[in-house]
Amino acid sequence: MIKRSQLTMLMVLIFLAMFVSPVWAGDPSGEATLAEYPDAPLDFIWVLMCGFLVMFMQPGFAMLESGFTRVKNAANIMMKNLMDFSIGALSYWAIGFAIMYGTMEGLNWLMGWSGFFLMGDAYDVVTIQSWFFQMVFAATAATIVSGCVAERCKFSTYILVSIVTTALIYPIYGHWIWGGGWLSGMGALDFAGSGVVHALGGWIGLAGALVLGPRFGKYRKDGTPNAISGHSITMATPGVFILWFGWFGFNCGSTLIGTDLRTSIIATNTTLAAAAGLVMAMIITWKWHGKPDVGMAGNGAIAGLVGITAPCAWVTPLSSVVIGAVAGVLVVAGVWFFDWVLHIDDPVGAVSVHGINGAWGLLALGIFADGTYGGVTGLLYGDSGFFAVQALSVAVNFVWAFGLGFIVFWVLKKTLGIRVSPEEELEGLDIGEHGMSAYPNYVMTEAFVEVD
Amino acid sequence: MIKRSQLTMLMVLIFLAMFVSPVWAGDPSGEATLAEYPDAPLDFIWVLMCGFLVMFMQPGFAMLESGFTRVKNAANIMMKNLMDFSIGALSYWAIGFAIMYGTMEGLNWLMGWSGFFLMGDAYDVVTIQSWFFQMVFAATAATIVSGCVAERCKFSTYILVSIVTTALIYPIYGHWIWGGGWLSGMGALDFAGSGVVHALGGWIGLAGALVLGPRFGKYRKDGTPNAISGHSITMATPGVFILWFGWFGFNCGSTLIGTDLRTSIIATNTTLAAAAGLVMAMIITWKWHGKPDVGMAGNGAIAGLVGITAPCAWVTPLSSVVIGAVAGVLVVAGVWFFDWVLHIDDPVGAVSVHGINGAWGLLALGIFADGTYGGVTGLLYGDSGFFAVQALSVAVNFVWAFGLGFIVFWVLKKTLGIRVSPEEELEGLDIGEHGMSAYPNYVMTEAFVEVD
Amino acid sequence: MIKRSQLTMLMVLIFLAMFVSPVWAGDPSGEATLAEYPDAPLDFIWVLMCGFLVMFMQPGFAMLESGFTRVKNAANIMMKNLMDFSIGALSYWAIGFAIMYGTMEGLNWLMGWSGFFLMGDAYDVVTIQSWFFQMVFAATAATIVSGCVAERCKFSTYILVSIVTTALIYPIYGHWIWGGGWLSGMGALDFAGSGVVHALGGWIGLAGALVLGPRFGKYRKDGTPNAISGHSITMATPGVFILWFGWFGFNCGSTLIGTDLRTSIIATNTTLAAAAGLVMAMIITWKWHGKPDVGMAGNGAIAGLVGITAPCAWVTPLSSVVIGAVAGVLVVAGVWFFDWVLHIDDPVGAVSVHGINGAWGLLALGIFADGTYGGVTGLLYGDSGFFAVQALSVAVNFVWAFGLGFIVFWVLKKTLGIRVSPEEELEGLDIGEHGMSAYPNYVMTEAFVEVD
Repeated sequence: MIKRSQLTMLMVLIFLAMFVSPVWAGDPSGEATLAEYPDAPLDFIWVLMCGFLVMFMQPGFAMLESGFTRVKNAANIMMKNLMDFSIGALSYWAIGFAIMYGTMEGLNWLMGWSGFFLMGDAYDVVTIQSWFFQMVFAATAATIVSGCVAERCKFSTYILVSIVTTALIYPIYGHWIWGGGWLSGMGALDFAGSGVVHALGGWIGLAGALVLGPRFGKYRKDGTPNAISGHSITMATPGVFILWFGWFGFNCGSTLIGTDLRTSIIATNTTLAAAAGLVMAMIITWKWHGKPDVGMAGNGAIAGLVGITAPCAWVTPLSSVVIGAVAGVLVVAGVWFFDWVLHIDDPVGAVSVHGINGAWGLLALGIFADGTYGGVTGLLYGDSGFFAVQALSVAVNFVWAFGLGFIVFWVLKKTLGIRVSPEEELEGLDIGEHGMSAYPNYVMTEAFVEVD
Repeated sequence: MIKRSQLTMLMVLIFLAMFVSPVWAGDPSGEATLAEYPDAPLDFIWVLMCGFLVMFMQPGFAMLESGFTRVKNAANIMMKNLMDFSIGALSYWAIGFAIMYGTMEGLNWLMGWSGFFLMGDAYDVVTIQSWFFQMVFAATAATIVSGCVAERCKFSTYILVSIVTTALIYPIYGHWIWGGGWLSGMGALDFAGSGVVHALGGWIGLAGALVLGPRFGKYRKDGTPNAISGHSITMATPGVFILWFGWFGFNCGSTLIGTDLRTSIIATNTTLAAAAGLVMAMIITWKWHGKPDVGMAGNGAIAGLVGITAPCAWVTPLSSVVIGAVAGVLVVAGVWFFDWVLHIDDPVGAVSVHGINGAWGLLALGIFADGTYGGVTGLLYGDSGFFAVQALSVAVNFVWAFGLGFIVFWVLKKTLGIRVSPEEELEGLDIGEHGMSAYPNYVMTEAFVEVD
Repeated sequence: MIKRSQLTMLMVLIFLAMFVSPVWAGDPSGEATLAEYPDAPLDFIWVLMCGFLVMFMQPGFAMLESGFTRVKNAANIMMKNLMDFSIGALSYWAIGFAIMYGTMEGLNWLMGWSGFFLMGDAYDVVTIQSWFFQMVFAATAATIVSGCVAERCKFSTYILVSIVTTALIYPIYGHWIWGGGWLSGMGALDFAGSGVVHALGGWIGLAGALVLGPRFGKYRKDGTPNAISGHSITMATPGVFILWFGWFGFNCGSTLIGTDLRTSIIATNTTLAAAAGLVMAMIITWKWHGKPDVGMAGNGAIAGLVGITAPCAWVTPLSSVVIGAVAGVLVVAGVWFFDWVLHIDDPVGAVSVHGINGAWGLLALGIFADGTYGGVTGLLYGDSGFFAVQALSVAVNFVWAFGLGFIVFWVLKKTLGIRVSPEEELEGLDIGEHGMSAYPNYVMTEAFVEVD
């Protein structure tokens, strides 16, 4: 694929680039920053610690996705999660961050264009602190897609999707909201990324699930879905808890400074929404199927977390419970809707969890913001204009993410191919893509290779 | 269960309540607090981060409990742990916190009565910071019960136990010690909750185990116990490490401020006690059975952690090793005692770990407090009066928690029923309570459905 | 083993010692320290939080090691990891810390000799804060050995290796670099322990693997290796993520103060190196075997982390990518080299991950340090003298750790024995060492007891 001469040129370039950063750097030692802002250590401690927690959501996603899918694809899912975080970090370092948080004379309403590879001015403790926290968000958006395309997407193609997501799709929309772009100019807000991260990832995933088509055997001839059980509820559930834990970093760290005391209310709202989402999803499945469903309860918690992500800083604890409870309803309804009405196969329900509830989070912020923090006021407290902007933001988010996602998956389908062969799908992607089994010492049921 | 008209009224009430908080709020933005206490950010960063760690103990408990029990109940145990944290957070938000940390003119020695739903004055960054940290403690007390009643308790009834625990039993006793109630007035202390959290949870669980009766097949006709193996030591052991990790938040965060440097000694004492508990439990099982027992070693570490929780701030590292070593002995002895003498079936040994060692922690504080911090001095360093108060505290804790727990379980037994049917117990609660299997792709041994 | 009279004397000694600490203490309450250093709380919050993260690497190591080995040894591996952290903490408390960070008139170039048992002067918030952070590093060095000797080493002997490692081998070398010993006097540096922790652990493990000999059936008569598959890639992969997460504490916390803003660059370098290591290992195995290998990708990430540990504070993000990419190559090459050329059986590749890449980290620091932080400059930016010192440090590290490790394992082999019987090895160490199975409810394949 890459010729030797190209590789040599790349290495020479890297060698030369190594001398750029130290020479034209910003403040790489942090001494000037510390002298100017004595509170900077508080910001750094808070934001970095929160960033570590967000990074830790990665195994949560991996465990949830793998636990909710079949044993024959378990290793492939782990590998996708390892890879998309790594590729995501590298892409966001090389390109994504420069587009999202860089500046571009004249076209700044659209995208940024500075700080590539964190070189030059960007070799600076403050810029790089920002990079670190933003990178873990970019990687979160990328990994959401993994669940939607699980059990049938080619690993090689999925790498390209991860690169495009973290280098372009995510950063450009992110720039519009968080990087000084046009949506933020109109007053659109998204505290920690219900829209920027979750809905965006969910809608890209929806495009992927649509272009890929359902898993073999998922729908009967009459279109009714077969339930395909996950292989380990005891892996998926700790995954839910890990995500919940990491979400404190996600939401609370989005103050971006260490001296904002609203963090306590953010943490509280985050937990209450998750709890309400879980309880509501549990109650609905209980009423519906006669028994409380464990997987849906876990998805309910995550739906509540996604829903509270945008409004977490601007609403009351009571509103957070309402927002989470609605999220719990929406996730159950969404899973039903995509499965029974649209027949789009989303193996772990990620479109409903992240897409629908990401959109709900943006709207909820426009409804419930109570005006006690930063002067942000929603519909319920009298500001209908802000709600309208949030509704626009939902639409833009969907069109951008689903549209770009569709184009990317469609082009990949027509060129490299995005789906493994039917034989490989039946046998499992662990063997087909990685030549291994996740659990070679165990005896598996026939369901392991069955269509279901 | 709930009529449509009642539901409508509830929604109207919630709608109206949404306007209470922002109007009669305390300091929801935190600006006034920050102006008055410039050190507040340190407190918030420290206490919130520690609170996140405590929340993360939840998957630790879930993994430990599920790993130590049979495969047929694995999903039910995960669901109980998801639910009790969620229900616990909601109950503590609605009621528990107001009773534990609210104030009540005249009756404050008994319980508090303000701050329900975190509304009104309680919509305040400092109050809510306190709520968050205390909520994760309340949920810990609740989840301890889960292990004691594992593999036979109805899920629906367990929900009610979780609500009563976090809304009433835990907050009232907690008020006596931490909320300005009568025990604290007598001088009783409990730094991070050996008694308030662990012994309380353990004794409620003891009541549950007693009222429920043993699992089918646990005791032979002559009363000798059958060993019922857990299904995954590789899930339980990371659970132990997660608990250990979260415990740093539990103990160190209980300074409640960020400027107390004693935290380093608290972290150190926490680790040394856990290590000593593990090593001691390992040695005892080695001498006793000829081989070091993995599960008991893990329980030894947690016993050490429970034992050091009350005294962690007031004792030397050397005393912590002694406290942990004694805890390691007590947990082995306790498991033997409940199993072989009292024939009370506690599937994961939670009564010995949390109940007995919680009590031990309160006594150890009365014995080993060395007077170097906050003027707290134990028996060994000359203050017998303090030891007497701690001993009283142990008795009150047992009577309250076991007594109330017994009443609750007994009333539930006589009304809704607390135990699944024998058929469901044999088949497993995963299918009976949730209509699923935790691991549908694996082939299980016959032991899976056997009585043992 | 221990007589009753000896035990009584020990208990009397402990009892007497309890009165030493409080009387001749340093500053156990922290009040004097706080008065003198108003920034101390920032340091404590940062270093303790980072220390908690480092402690959390323990389940990461346990899950990685257990996931990468066979099901019949899974419980034994969990037990080793529980034990080596506990024994390590106790040894480092009793002896190790005094040797590593104590002082010794005249012989301080060689080792320290004060602060045993954290008694006397060492009963001080600052000293004990240091102890806590250093203890989790010592335990990390110890647990690395576990992987190299997996599936055949006697548990009882492994305990002694853990004690010697944390009480002597690690602290003495650590003193030379971090405690003011002779290597630091020559200018050798190691920011967070590529050499002090990882290479040291890896080389001790290499000695262990060599003295123990390969697992039964690992090599064919012609010397070519059999691949022995691990039993759970879904346990090993979250282990990789947990290690990555904990590594932020490892590297960033090594500033040892909370006001150093270079931490953002350290966190970023840490992630970029890990990502590059993973991607590079993935690419190589893909080109080599036709399919990307999940286990090797995980090891690639950890190799990148080990490689960046020494230089993390002193290099640019671009250099970190290069360092990580080289680490990804080295780990694949190392695993091949030990397996196919030297025929040394290292079940999880820990020698290549920690030993080789630990050495690479020390060299990389000597090559890529860019002079923007603390005046540390490597070969590439003009300082060849520093590179020479780092190269010396690599040699000393290897001779010391491999040499001492070899002696310890050899002496144990000739006295107590270090290897389980062939029968026990075939049946599995879970049953042989602990009388249990890790997964009693599952049906295992014949491979479970086969030689492979």
